Amino acid sequence: MRSTDVLVIGSSAAGLVAAVTAKTVNPDKVVTVVRLEEATLVPCGIPYVFSTVETTDNNIMPSGKMFENAGVELVIGRATAIDRERKVCSLESGEEMQYDKLVLATGSSPVIPGWLKGAELDNVFTVPKNKVYLDAMQEKLADCANIIVIGAGFIGVELSDELKAAGHNVTLVERLPHVLALAFDEDIAIRAEDTLKSRGVTVRTGVGVKEIQGNGSVTGVLLENGDVLEADAVVLSVGYSPNTELAVQAGLAVDQRGAIDVDEYMRTDDPDIFAVGDCAGKTDFVTRKPSPVMLASTACAEARTAGINLFKLSVIKTFSGTISIFATALGDTGFGVAGLTETRAKEEGFDVVTGMFEGVDKHPGTLPGAHKQMVKLIVGRESNVILGGEVVGGLSTGELTNLIGFIIQNRMDVNAILSAQIGTHPLLTASPAGYPLLKAAGMVSKKSLGLI
Amino acid sequence: MRSTDVLVIGSSAAGLVAAVTAKTVNPDKVVTVVRLEEATLVPCGIPYVFSTVETTDNNIMPSGKMFENAGVELVIGRATAIDRERKVCSLESGEEMQYDKLVLATGSSPVIPGWLKGAELDNVFTVPKNKVYLDAMQEKLADCANIIVIGAGFIGVELSDELKAAGHNVTLVERLPHVLALAFDEDIAIRAEDTLKSRGVTVRTGVGVKEIQGNGSVTGVLLENGDVLEADAVVLSVGYSPNTELAVQAGLAVDQRGAIDVDEYMRTDDPDIFAVGDCAGKTDFVTRKPSPVMLASTACAEARTAGINLFKLSVIKTFSGTISIFATALGDTGFGVAGLTETRAKEEGFDVVTGMFEGVDKHPGTLPGAHKQMVKLIVGRESNVILGGEVVGGLSTGELTNLIGFIIQNRMDVNAILSAQIGTHPLLTASPAGYPLLKAAGMVSKKSLGLI
Repeated sequence: MRSTDVLVIGSSAAGLVAAVTAKTVNPDKVVTVVRLEEATLVPCGIPYVFSTVETTDNNIMPSGKMFENAGVELVIGRATAIDRERKVCSLESGEEMQYDKLVLATGSSPVIPGWLKGAELDNVFTVPKNKVYLDAMQEKLADCANIIVIGAGFIGVELSDELKAAGHNVTLVERLPHVLALAFDEDIAIRAEDTLKSRGVTVRTGVGVKEIQGNGSVTGVLLENGDVLEADAVVLSVGYSPNTELAVQAGLAVDQRGAIDVDEYMRTDDPDIFAVGDCAGKTDFVTRKPSPVMLASTACAEARTAGINLFKLSVIKTFSGTISIFATALGDTGFGVAGLTETRAKEEGFDVVTGMFEGVDKHPGTLPGAHKQMVKLIVGRESNVILGGEVVGGLSTGELTNLIGFIIQNRMDVNAILSAQIGTHPLLTASPAGYPLLKAAGMVSKKSLGLI
Repeated sequence: MRSTDVLVIGSSAAGLVAAVTAKTVNPDKVVTVVRLEEATLVPCGIPYVFSTVETTDNNIMPSGKMFENAGVELVIGRATAIDRERKVCSLESGEEMQYDKLVLATGSSPVIPGWLKGAELDNVFTVPKNKVYLDAMQEKLADCANIIVIGAGFIGVELSDELKAAGHNVTLVERLPHVLALAFDEDIAIRAEDTLKSRGVTVRTGVGVKEIQGNGSVTGVLLENGDVLEADAVVLSVGYSPNTELAVQAGLAVDQRGAIDVDEYMRTDDPDIFAVGDCAGKTDFVTRKPSPVMLASTACAEARTAGINLFKLSVIKTFSGTISIFATALGDTGFGVAGLTETRAKEEGFDVVTGMFEGVDKHPGTLPGAHKQMVKLIVGRESNVILGGEVVGGLSTGELTNLIGFIIQNRMDVNAILSAQIGTHPLLTASPAGYPLLKAAGMVSKKSLGLI
């Protein structure tokens, strides 16, 4: 029987980083990855295969090379069962692999609501992390004039924008009042929605889908209000559920969302089995409640934690809850968020003060390519600690959102921002006298002091 | 006699922010700014008036409007003397102004080395923060084919790039081995130098200037090695010295560099007089030595500190030394640095470990506009604390450098980076599995553990 010190099942972002970290920290151990496909996709890049990068072939993770460089073994195959007593994993091929430490990085799959009539019709698609599926889908979509995307989370929004850029007529349908309504506060969600509309996507919000209509192949979508939208294809992007068949079969505990229960070291209730990424349960960094947000960046942070803690625990390298830092871009406008929105913070019972400032991401604002930059901060009133932040700006939005993420993770307060030194440059940042992050913090401070 | 609670002398970045902060924190106080000119320039934008924004008129700070919005009084005039006993400032107009608190934000002026023969010739320029001077200079430069820029700090590099873009033949002369040699470690300075050369600027490094030659107007520059470079104009960018005439006249203490002595609240040795920006002394955040680095961003941080602490001190809103966070861009390549370089850290006696990683600032790297992104971290060996960082990347370099600045200012260590959550997006950041900041930290960790 083949034997390995560390066995990682799955090799999207989480599996890749867990395996490489495990091998880096434990160079004398044998680290083996089992995955389904020869080529794995860059998960966040998937919407962009439909126009910007043109094909899945331009969206491949260089994981093979990374494993080779790191000295990680790679096996292509499907893990079918785990025998915890014998510490053996069975593959579909009949092969068995003995492990000392096991890392589950089995990912997630698109949700198809059970109640949704017509989801089985031809030309109804989801967006799985599967190259073969996506290649076939892209080929079929090429002949479709009218495409309806259902669900306006990040994937739905990005996919709509890309399919429009690829020349289709695209209608994005969302039950909530706005696109990205769970990710951003309303005013910012409206900005994203307006940007998406200005780029030619038809947006139908505040109305749910009743059924998908068709005869063999899809012909339209019936909305809850009785409207029928004609469609040659439908893409469902209404969420993902964790892939936990293996874990459940092995008798590992799962949480109320069905994800694998893990602690801050990413251990399951079996001390030799870790779980990371979309298949693993998440706790919100601020609210300490289970979080449904699945992000490759969170997955990688979890994977680093698991990789480091496999053979001996490090009290300072734990995963202390997901901050849900994410960003997207529509054309040259970036939208980013970290931690809690104002709406969410209030729903969760926090007494918050917010500050918002809109400036320009270059200075002077006359510079070519200058873009408005807005920062909103959500701050605990009694603690002054930053609970969340939102950014709308140009293409530096992602890194600015990461700065806010760092501030949240390190539980910094408004004073830490107000006394912060920042570097500025005309072509690269806002002005030092009008840097929106600092001005937003100043706004919070003024409110707290009762000055406005 | 006119009377004001707060008098701010000067209104470039430091004066502007000090005045607005003072008024914000003390809405009931009268805050007055005295400055020389009707229009003040965005200081960091000055190099860009020569091509990118075309004219100084496109590089004006909206300070008048900011003062009006904040309720700050503005007086155009020149302060000529301070009577500390009477707490009165005299203006050139003969007017006197009574103050309770005084903030000196008198800035800096270009250095013309006393030994440099020929500096008085026609068509020899410096780069002062003075619209009238720069407008005249720009008009005269329009007729000059060959321009020599002396001094390859940030201003010299940016100006050379802009003058080249404006159609001139530009030669940049630097005594040190590379451009930006004091700002960056050698390998990174070489990248900047190569980028500048590829954009058409002729670079002569490792050789000083002996004299400027000419007869009435400049004709050439004699180098220390005997070479003569033909020139229709010369621009000196060899540094700035603090404007401290007023402070010296008033008997305030100055430091060994000639800048006004200040404490962490930005107070001079007169408790009612504060100094901020280029005229104020600086202490390096890490080395605790006097620092010669003058930056608008540092000035604004000092100004916020002064504005907050004028009437009552805040122990948590102090200025704890300059981190020297800056960035520049040459075309679509950004160069950023925060804190100590490796060279400087070693010179100062720190035992350091460094980590460097080069990835791509979008993911997959096939995305249009993807740019290499390199991060280098300089870390104290015994403390694991981040002492400095350098970035070469695309246009998100400024904000990524700011994130490193935050890490330095908050004395975070390698573990804080390794356990950090970052957000990623294909169009906005590096991949979560190859985010250069985290990978560079990982490299430091591996070295520290003896794994490489």
